[in-house]
Amino acid sequence: MVHWYSDLARLWHRVWEELDLGVRDPKMAARSPVLATLGLGGAPEARTVVLRDACREEARLAIHTDSRSTKCAELAAHPKASLHIWEPRMRLQTRLRGHMAVETGAAVAWLWGHVPDGSRASYGVTPAPGTPIETADAYQSAPDPSRFAVLTLTIEEIDAVHLSGDHHRRALFRREDNWRGTWLAP
Amino acid sequence: MVHWYSDLARLWHRVWEELDLGVRDPKMAARSPVLATLGLGGAPEARTVVLRDACREEARLAIHTDSRSTKCAELAAHPKASLHIWEPRMRLQTRLRGHMAVETGAAVAWLWGHVPDGSRASYGVTPAPGTPIETADAYQSAPDPSRFAVLTLTIEEIDAVHLSGDHHRRALFRREDNWRGTWLAP
Repeated sequence: MVHWYSDLARLWHRVWEELDLGVRDPKMAARSPVLATLGLGGAPEARTVVLRDACREEARLAIHTDSRSTKCAELAAHPKASLHIWEPRMRLQTRLRGHMAVETGAAVAWLWGHVPDGSRASYGVTPAPGTPIETADAYQSAPDPSRFAVLTLTIEEIDAVHLSGDHHRRALFRREDNWRGTWLAP
Repeated sequence: MVHWYSDLARLWHRVWEELDLGVRDPKMAARSPVLATLGLGGAPEARTVVLRDACREEARLAIHTDSRSTKCAELAAHPKASLHIWEPRMRLQTRLRGHMAVETGAAVAWLWGHVPDGSRASYGVTPAPGTPIETADAYQSAPDPSRFAVLTLTIEEIDAVHLSGDHHRRALFRREDNWRGTWLAP
């Protein structure tokens, strides 16, 4: 029997279905990937982000963040990035590698109108994220459209691993192969 | 009212409680952290690993892996690493930064006896993990104690973020401060 995870084309399709679901449904695992970057001190960094858009045709993903967050400075210096998603329902680990563009200001101002009021305070914490403060509450958050940043990952590779009991299946899809895909030893 | 997440000492305690729970209970989020490393090509990498041991006194964590996995080669070249845990029940993101030691052979042979039979096949996939194969099933796994590797993270920093509605609290604990902790703007 051919399962979705035992056929390269169907596995590829399922990865993008999960990404599309993540954009639409906050409860899905793909809504909250872990973004790995290279820190300014040379060490790898990882944190949860929120997936805001997914374009299968261009193989691009979008994340919104505060332009003064550490990850923006890291990505400006080292644009290579990786997103990790573990979907327990599907028993599917998806790793998306590529390079991240950081856009702010006029280029992304049109998107600010789509940010819900309740989310706007995420863009404008004072002092800047990561600054030491005296007490846990010694910060203000006021929406600041000038601090709204869009991170766009242009995917170069997708590494997908499906766990089925003891039997693991692992595939690598690459842009340069037009996403044809190849199986890898898990 | 003082919650566990509004007091530095209690937050620190809770982080380690979750790590201890992760070692004992496969269902806990801390059982399956995301390990970020620096890839051999200079790009950050991230994948799920399994937490096997946690020592609060020394602030060390242990992970077991196949010595021929890519992460072992990456960590041998760049020992700086980061672990990421998102605990949805507590609404707590924990990021653990430090340097990872890779041990194999005689130094870790005593631990092999504690690896359950069902897990031993994870150490000995042929061809080596990440090798392209013709079909999804074109690999064998046979337990090979010589490929059993223990990764030990000596933690230097713990960055903990608690989400409570719109109100986020973020703390940084550092070994060099004897883990006293300081609040950060989130």
